[in-house]
Formats: sequence, C-alpha cells, structure tokens
Amino acid sequence: MNKVVVRSKIWLEVDGSALIGEGRERLLQLIDEQGSISAAARQMGLSYRKAWSYLKSMEEALDVSLVNRQRGGMGGGSTGLTSEAKDLLVFLNQLRTKFDDFSNELEMVDF
Amino acid sequence: MNKVVVRSKIWLEVDGSALIGEGRERLLQLIDEQGSISAAARQMGLSYRKAWSYLKSMEEALDVSLVNRQRGGMGGGSTGLTSEAKDLLVFLNQLRTKFDDFSNELEMVDF
Repeated sequence: MNKVVVRSKIWLEVDGSALIGEGRERLLQLIDEQGSISAAARQMGLSYRKAWSYLKSMEEALDVSLVNRQRGGMGGGSTGLTSEAKDLLVFLNQLRTKFDDFSNELEMVDF
Repeated sequence: MNKVVVRSKIWLEVDGSALIGEGRERLLQLIDEQGSISAAARQMGLSYRKAWSYLKSMEEALDVSLVNRQRGGMGGGSTGLTSEAKDLLVFLNQLRTKFDDFSNELEMVDF
C-alpha cells in the first residue's frame, strides 16, 4: 500500500472560542508585510471592516494590542504589528513545527 | 488574560490526497452502528452514491476492503466494517488522544 501520513491543522482558542487559526495568522503576516490593514484585507479578499473586527476580537480575547498605528508622515502613516503580535506569530510557527515533528515521529497504522 | 489553549484537527493522507478525516471517520462509525451504508449516509445527510464513493476512494487508496456485505437473511442483509476498517478507527482515536495529550503538555505563549 501507499504511505499514509498524518496531517494536522492547529488553532488557538480562548474560553472555548477560536482566537487565531490560519486565516487570522495570514492577516497578521500581511499587515506586517504591507504596513496597512486595508492592503492586507484587500489581499485576502476581506473587507476592511471584517479584517478590523478580527483584529478587535483577538485583541479583546488576549487583552493586548496587536497593531500600532503611526500617523502622519509622507506616506500618510502606516500600521505595524506590536511585539505581542509578533510573538504570537512566532509562537504559532513554532507550534506548527512541533506538531509536524510529532506527526512524523508517529508509528503508522499497518494494514 | 484568559487561558489560551491549542486545538488541533487531524486527518490522514495517502500520496498527498486526503484519505480520512472527521467526516469519513463518522461515516465508518455510523456504518458500524447502523449495519447499513444507506442508513449511515442518510444520518449524515449524504446521498448513498456519495457515501459509496468515499468508501471506494478509501479502499482504493489503502488497497483493503473496509466494508463487508452479508447478503440475505431475515433483515435483507447488512453491511459491517472489516477488521481493517475497525483498526483504522481505533488508530484515528489513538492519534487524536496523542495529539490532545501533546497539546496539553505544550508551554503556552505568555503575554
């Protein structure tokens, strides 16, 4: 038979509600890359309002700020991630690596 | 802040294609409970044809039979799981427990 592999998807929950999974993680990564919530939302096919509501709900659940606004300047200001948001992304990345390593070490079913 | 927990979802793949996840696992469990593919399909809101195609694709990927048909008898025959299908369900259950244990042992992010 062909080789069976275990795949997994992970997300974080707070009080039984989804905090962050692949979609919101991608949103944070894009805000970091683009320096703008609206550019990040556009790239994900989300409305600004929706992207903002995701950010607000994560900030409320964690009780930390995830984005920083720098107003003014030549480009009209930009939005970046706070160190807490960056820590969260690093943490999710490490988690995924741990889960992948764990999956690869599992003894597989044998028919 | 509230307690953050890691949740995970697992599935098996063969050659990069999904073999079995929660839906197909449920289908096998229901066939086992109901002794009938059509009753299992109905309970899941699937057409018989769709349920059958899931079974076929799993059987082909694994190169084993997953269901046994006992024809005739008073009830008009019944369908049960083969020992391989039962092993697969046990395996998935054990996997889920391992992933849950692994998740619970992880050190969580601290804001």
